[in-house]
Amino acid sequence: MPRIIYLASDHAAVELKAALADWLRGEGHDVRDLGPETADRVDYPDYGYKLAEALAADAQATGIALCGSGIGISIAANRVAGCRCALVNEPVSAALAREHNDANAIAMGARLVGLDMAKACVEAFLATPFAGGRHAGRVEKLTNPPG
Amino acid sequence: MPRIIYLASDHAAVELKAALADWLRGEGHDVRDLGPETADRVDYPDYGYKLAEALAADAQATGIALCGSGIGISIAANRVAGCRCALVNEPVSAALAREHNDANAIAMGARLVGLDMAKACVEAFLATPFAGGRHAGRVEKLTNPPG
Repeated sequence: MPRIIYLASDHAAVELKAALADWLRGEGHDVRDLGPETADRVDYPDYGYKLAEALAADAQATGIALCGSGIGISIAANRVAGCRCALVNEPVSAALAREHNDANAIAMGARLVGLDMAKACVEAFLATPFAGGRHAGRVEKLTNPPG
Repeated sequence: MPRIIYLASDHAAVELKAALADWLRGEGHDVRDLGPETADRVDYPDYGYKLAEALAADAQATGIALCGSGIGISIAANRVAGCRCALVNEPVSAALAREHNDANAIAMGARLVGLDMAKACVEAFLATPFAGGRHAGRVEKLTNPPG
């Protein structure tokens, strides 16, 4: 089933972002690349926030956040309560992020994860439904942080 | 050098939390276990928020956040702007989290990472200084999220 998939990165992950975008478009998804377009230096929080706000505004959409390690952009994305972004480097975590946490984004590090592993993570993420049940109340708490 | 280290988890990671706490106390650190104390079911966001707020209140402290996969509690912890929590499962990421992101917490999954790997991640995290420089402005942006 075609999905709306937003991608965002920093300069360190522009190539991985382009490769994943091409692949996902080839799979028939509606891919929306939030940038950057070049490898000029940018700040990962800017793109993490952009992605998270796009996801907060569209409950049906999925996001992929990329930077050198995946760490910085995942921290930024999770600053926005409507985004639940799981930093992953293998498909077991990508599936658990959907099943237990109803994550709407995964983050990966372009300097740590190769293209085939990144694709395997995205496939597991897209294929796995949220389990609901006892997990639903916990996810609800993630949407209502303190302060 | 002895450090103040807060630990928090959910029920799935109580054993790993206790093992890490014992080890870190043995290493001379000031370990503060924020719970839970038993394996009775709890919600990971409650403990993620508790840890993040402790770190937001003490710039010198370090945190370790644990749940089944590490995903849920890392998302929760990063809801609090004073917390920069990196989900890791190997020491390269744990070191990069300090060097590039000035992370003050790491999250790990008790069902995915064994005790020796968790210790290696904590050791890398505690041993690595923040690089500053071009990274400082990005970390500053993590402290000032939109909205």
